[in-house]
Parts: sequence; C-alpha cells; structure tokens
Amino acid sequence: MNLVRMTWQGQPCWGELEGETVHLRAGMLGPRTGEAAPYTPAALLAPAEPSKIVCVGRNYLDHIRELGNDAVGLPTEPGIFLKGPNALAEPGGAVTRPDWTENFHFEGELAAVIGTRASHLSPETALSAVAGYTCGLDLTARDLQKTDLQWFRAKAADRFCPLGPQLVTDLDPRDLRVQTRVNGEIRQDSHTSHMIFDLPAILTYITRYVTLEPGDVVLTGTPEGVGPLERGDVVEVEVQGVGVLRTPIL
Amino acid sequence: MNLVRMTWQGQPCWGELEGETVHLRAGMLGPRTGEAAPYTPAALLAPAEPSKIVCVGRNYLDHIRELGNDAVGLPTEPGIFLKGPNALAEPGGAVTRPDWTENFHFEGELAAVIGTRASHLSPETALSAVAGYTCGLDLTARDLQKTDLQWFRAKAADRFCPLGPQLVTDLDPRDLRVQTRVNGEIRQDSHTSHMIFDLPAILTYITRYVTLEPGDVVLTGTPEGVGPLERGDVVEVEVQGVGVLRTPIL
Repeated sequence: MNLVRMTWQGQPCWGELEGETVHLRAGMLGPRTGEAAPYTPAALLAPAEPSKIVCVGRNYLDHIRELGNDAVGLPTEPGIFLKGPNALAEPGGAVTRPDWTENFHFEGELAAVIGTRASHLSPETALSAVAGYTCGLDLTARDLQKTDLQWFRAKAADRFCPLGPQLVTDLDPRDLRVQTRVNGEIRQDSHTSHMIFDLPAILTYITRYVTLEPGDVVLTGTPEGVGPLERGDVVEVEVQGVGVLRTPIL
Repeated sequence: MNLVRMTWQGQPCWGELEGETVHLRAGMLGPRTGEAAPYTPAALLAPAEPSKIVCVGRNYLDHIRELGNDAVGLPTEPGIFLKGPNALAEPGGAVTRPDWTENFHFEGELAAVIGTRASHLSPETALSAVAGYTCGLDLTARDLQKTDLQWFRAKAADRFCPLGPQLVTDLDPRDLRVQTRVNGEIRQDSHTSHMIFDLPAILTYITRYVTLEPGDVVLTGTPEGVGPLERGDVVEVEVQGVGVLRTPIL
C-alpha cells in the first residue's frame, strides 16, 4: 500500500495512491473517506506528522571509516540524535543552503514512520510498530558537528529533513537498496543489509528509553559517499520499492 | 496572569488561575470559555504542548566549572540540545529513577514557553514571543553524557523533563532567583542574572536556525550545585514568582 500526504482543497490530508488516483483516508492509518483526488506530485507533503524525528548516526561501517570515526572504535550501541518537526521538508521542495555552514552535506537514508505507540519493543515484534517506509535526506552542517556542544545547528535546523515521496507498507527494511544521486551522478549506493544495527535493533534500543508515537520518524543512518552540496545542486535519494525523493538546493 | 493546564472532566484543558478558581480558556492563549473549575493541584498537567523542547547547556559559569568543562574554554555561543515531548512530566508527578544510569542528576532551571511562532528574532523583540515562565527540571543521566554519541538517553528519555506548576506571564526572565532543593535541603541557589546568555540572546540564537512554535519549551540552563538523585528523594525546583515544581523520585 502506498500512502501519501498532500494538500487537497487547501487542507493537508492523507490518502492511498492507486494509479493516478488518491483515495482519501481519515488519518495516516484511518479508513477511506470515500473521497478521491487526482495524484498531484506538486501537492505532496512529507508523509509523516511526527512529535519527534529520531536519527541513527554511524550505522554503516564504510561511512564511519570515510569520516575517520573508526579510530574511536566501532559502536556497540546505536548512536541516536534528535531533530524536531521543524526539520521536515516536503518531497520536491527546495532547501536553501544555509550561509552559516562551510560544509553542507547530503546523507541519504531509509526512513521508517511509526504507526502505533511503542515502548519497550523487542527485536521480534519491533517492525509491527512501523506504518511504512520512505526516503529521508539527513542534511548536515558537517563543520558544526565538531565545533558545537551537540548536533543542533548541524542536524536540526529548519528543513534539514526532506522526507518522501510516499509511505510504502509491506517492505522488508533489511533488504532495500539505498542510492543517493547529486545532479544525476551516483554518490551513495548501498543496501540496508549493511547496517550495523538493523531496524528491529534500532527500534528496540530507542524504545527502551523513549516512547515512540504514531507519526514519529526514525532515520536509520547513511552509508558511505556523503559529500558537500552547493547552490543549484539537485539531490535525489532513492530507496528500493519507495521511489525518489528529489530536493533542489537553492 | 497564572495559566494552568489540567485534567478537567476527563479532558486536558487550559485555564487561568484566580484564587482557588480556574477559569477555563480555549487553548493556552485563547479567550475564557465562561466555564470554571476548582483548582486541583493533583489534576495539573505540564503547562505546555511543545513540538520540541530546546535546552541550553553550560549557561552558568559556576556550573561549567563544577563539571570541569571550563578547561575547553567558555562558550562563545549557546550550546543547544533537544528533548522531545515524551520527556514532559506533570508537576507533582513521580519519576522513576532509571536502572540504566549510574549517576542520575537533577538540574533545576527557568523554563520559557513560546506563545507565537518565532523565527529570526532579535534581542530587542525576542521576549514578545514568550507566553510565560515556569519551573523546569532537566533530569540528566550524567554518566551517559560522556559515553554516548549525543545526549539522547542522557537527556531525552521519557519523563526527563518535569515542568510546572503553572505558567506565569509578566515576569522578567533576567531577574529571577532559581533554587533547587532535595529532601528540603538547598542544593542550587542562583539567579537568572548570572546566565552567560540571557533569554533574549538564547531565543535570538535558536531562531536563527530553528522556528519555534506556540507551546515549545525553552530550558535556559542550570546553575551550579547539580548532584545525584536516589529512589525516595524529592526534588523541588522553585523559580521566583512562579512557585514550586515538586518531583518525587521512585
């Protein structure tokens, strides 16, 4: 099932995409309302209404190595950080390159959106808390990660989390190709099977400490190949089975 | 004006406290509905409905010194970190001491709750975005601050942010005594005039990067005197002009 969130008749709404038709739904996981709308990519919104965006850092070995972070040892537990809902940006929407970073990086990754309130999940049942999967772009002010007390400006600034284009249920998050292209050139090309901590392990870890709510977003970490963005670039994150999240940089 | 959020007839609601009467309001800053309820401290909720909780670390010189963090130099910009709404706990509500930290600390501080959407504030106008002030307890797993990639478990776990008891408008956040007591013994006793970055400077900094929404909480940092909590302790944070936020530790 392919769920989209879009503006329709001036209001944000959820719907189920079938061909070129969006069957409107009462909420992300609610029943169909009986109304239908034409599929309009320009009207799409980020397919999530999170109370928080929970992100994993350093979850692919070759990404840890490319940033020189393997010297401190490989992680024995997921490294987690937060963005707020202010970070969301809609699929296709442009992001302005901030003037306060010297090194503005793309990080393409698989995103999971939570469907049910979840606390103290176990690896065996964790995926049942997920509503669906989509593409995430974890924009990062790389220079400020090192200089700031915590990754606030570096990760959580407005529109630092483009998400979409749609939410796809019935995928196996451990078996998906993840590719990032900049101006059409492949820059990241990996597979979620290469994660150090797979999604059940991530969700088990997070929910030991933090209750996840329906609509919350979990970003699962980026593979190797990250790099800087400049004005005029176009980033595309493609997750197998989901589609392409396109983000022009202004 | 003293605003409270409470459960009334099974529903969360906002009201204005006058004597022992709560005049219900349509939202935090909405008009009175004409209904009234008796003031019931046990029914109080945290007086905020945040999309994010934005916190300042290392904002009092003597607190920086007590943790030995002055060796790296004093901050030239506010050090910001995030908690999610899952961290809120109601005034008077108990917090269970987690079994996964060896060093569970109290940090009493002034909290500001945002009243209007705010981006790119200036120091001169920043305080006009604040709805009111209350007491915040920034619970901290001190040991995990050092070992984890970011301050996720250390700061953002469920119920790590008791808040309340009420939201008071018309205070000067630069001129308030802040005191924390554990089992009646004074452990922190400082004044917001000792902040390195005052609230207008904090809000100006945050909103350069992140849009604040109505209901968002800003924790302004803790003064010296932090220390560990054990089961059976009772923490009281008192901000001048606001009242006492009481948190039993189970």
